[in-house]
Amino acid sequence: MNNEKPLLSVLRGKTTANPPLWLMRQAGRYLPEYRELRAKSASFLDFCYSPAAAAEATLQPIRRFGFDAAILFSDILVIPDALGQKVSFESGAGPRLEPIEAPENLSRLRDVPDYSRLAPVFETVDRVKSALPTQTAFIGFCGAPWTVASYMIAGQGTSDQAPARLFAYRHPEAFDILIEKLTEASIGYLLRQIDAGVEVVQIFDSWAGVLPPREFENWVFSPLRKIVSRIKTERPNAAVIAFARGAGTHLCRLVAELGADAYGLDTAADPVWAAQETAGRAALQGNLDPLALLAGGAALDQEVEAILDALKGHPHIFNLGHGILPQTPIAHVERLVDLIRKSGA
Amino acid sequence: MNNEKPLLSVLRGKTTANPPLWLMRQAGRYLPEYRELRAKSASFLDFCYSPAAAAEATLQPIRRFGFDAAILFSDILVIPDALGQKVSFESGAGPRLEPIEAPENLSRLRDVPDYSRLAPVFETVDRVKSALPTQTAFIGFCGAPWTVASYMIAGQGTSDQAPARLFAYRHPEAFDILIEKLTEASIGYLLRQIDAGVEVVQIFDSWAGVLPPREFENWVFSPLRKIVSRIKTERPNAAVIAFARGAGTHLCRLVAELGADAYGLDTAADPVWAAQETAGRAALQGNLDPLALLAGGAALDQEVEAILDALKGHPHIFNLGHGILPQTPIAHVERLVDLIRKSGA
Repeated sequence: MNNEKPLLSVLRGKTTANPPLWLMRQAGRYLPEYRELRAKSASFLDFCYSPAAAAEATLQPIRRFGFDAAILFSDILVIPDALGQKVSFESGAGPRLEPIEAPENLSRLRDVPDYSRLAPVFETVDRVKSALPTQTAFIGFCGAPWTVASYMIAGQGTSDQAPARLFAYRHPEAFDILIEKLTEASIGYLLRQIDAGVEVVQIFDSWAGVLPPREFENWVFSPLRKIVSRIKTERPNAAVIAFARGAGTHLCRLVAELGADAYGLDTAADPVWAAQETAGRAALQGNLDPLALLAGGAALDQEVEAILDALKGHPHIFNLGHGILPQTPIAHVERLVDLIRKSGA
Repeated sequence: MNNEKPLLSVLRGKTTANPPLWLMRQAGRYLPEYRELRAKSASFLDFCYSPAAAAEATLQPIRRFGFDAAILFSDILVIPDALGQKVSFESGAGPRLEPIEAPENLSRLRDVPDYSRLAPVFETVDRVKSALPTQTAFIGFCGAPWTVASYMIAGQGTSDQAPARLFAYRHPEAFDILIEKLTEASIGYLLRQIDAGVEVVQIFDSWAGVLPPREFENWVFSPLRKIVSRIKTERPNAAVIAFARGAGTHLCRLVAELGADAYGLDTAADPVWAAQETAGRAALQGNLDPLALLAGGAALDQEVEAILDALKGHPHIFNLGHGILPQTPIAHVERLVDLIRKSGA
């Protein structure tokens, strides 16, 4: 008798008839029930820090679609917030932070996060844990140091992360201090999420793909390795998913040396190549183009089939290659769930 | 006695003590003499279509830095313009085109470009040709069909090319017609540039990196192969550089099957990996981060050295991994020229 949750089985290297399924940003604006819930909180950070609301947002897509994993509803920028940087979310304009424009601005930050500020996040975990169906895995997360630093320095989202890249070229020692601080903060934050009840943690390095090799080594690979190593050492029962978006050819080295249980593939990654290069050494997660899900129809069916074929016989968690888009029709998500559920039959 | 231009030697597979050097967007806003020249034309398209002005812009960086190649001053959007789409450039806001929002909008386009509209481009080539130093190679260019289509459909530059990706998912037959039309137009345009006097053509697929594998195959690989094959067949003395930005792991297949003489590496590409995977089969071009050039100092020196080391012994054209940024200090470009010229000593 095997009662292990399907997603956890795959993270332990097993293959399944049809892959477990969840979607990045599955708790989000494409859901009418989410938009209704969100409208009740004034600010997005308030929403993230309200355990009842955040737990409800986490559970909504599980109720509607029966995904194989719930992912904690929160935001990667709670870490800068807990480090003392001013963070706000303006509606329609994305996050705004007091930018770090020079090395001396780093003195504004605390040495370690104020974890009491993050207490509502851990309470959210506790609430969700007891409400989840028995076969649903529970995933916590954080942003990777490079990605979080890119927001902290620019003070907002940018298309090319130029402010952080330039800061790192001009002030490598100061940038290293920031990355180190974020690495330790990420470890502390993930350990506390695990202790509160998540079974898996995913580290999102959404902007890994813009860096030249030396910078990828210093600002992506090295901090990710530290985080994964500490999590696996200190909480050996927890699984880790590393998602370095745009890692490209670096994926081989990540799989060989990072020590995570699974690696996220972004939309542009070739799952045939990835399966071949990483054969059996880790599970792969991904990587449907969110625009194919938005488009629906034959494009959706064909893209899903191509990914299932490419990763057949490989430990595979089906997901998008990037977050689900707010305009995505619910019916297309239902179609996706249907395609995946029937895929092993 | 070998009087072959250094850049052409490398394109024929030779290695050189120090690599030939040019920079993408080397004729551009970082140069005060360019800004002065540009101020004399009302619109950017007028500027591109004025042979005297465009020839002068092409020659300015050669006079100042002695680069090993001049690249025709023009824009990839002259092709939509010659196909009858309304194109304009608003200052500070980038290009604006009448967007192609539905398959029926394709009927607005001519079957083949109005080459008489492009006559000033060919006259520019003729003027530059006779003014270039004897050791300076002359490069023409076009945008690749996918990249040009992404502007034609969105009606502007976009960070993720979502409108074109969505159009291609929803209307694959119509999108294929557009790609075919652009493929033929690109071939005709490049052949005419070669006949007017360029020795090399570079095809810029700036947005190749956002596509999933099936779409990369259909919209990047297949049209590029057609273009390269036709150019190499019909003008065997001309060399071709293919630059599929963000090609990532697809680079191996491009080098194996496209038939170009050189491949551009973008900023994030690992030149160590690229040299290993393509060993000797084609020249590689790149790939300094334009932000490292903007930053200057130790970062510039270290990044340049890492690239030179990685591609030592390989046919290599030194370049940026993306266009030079307008804010780049002239002194940093001078430092780069100095580093490259002394690198083989």
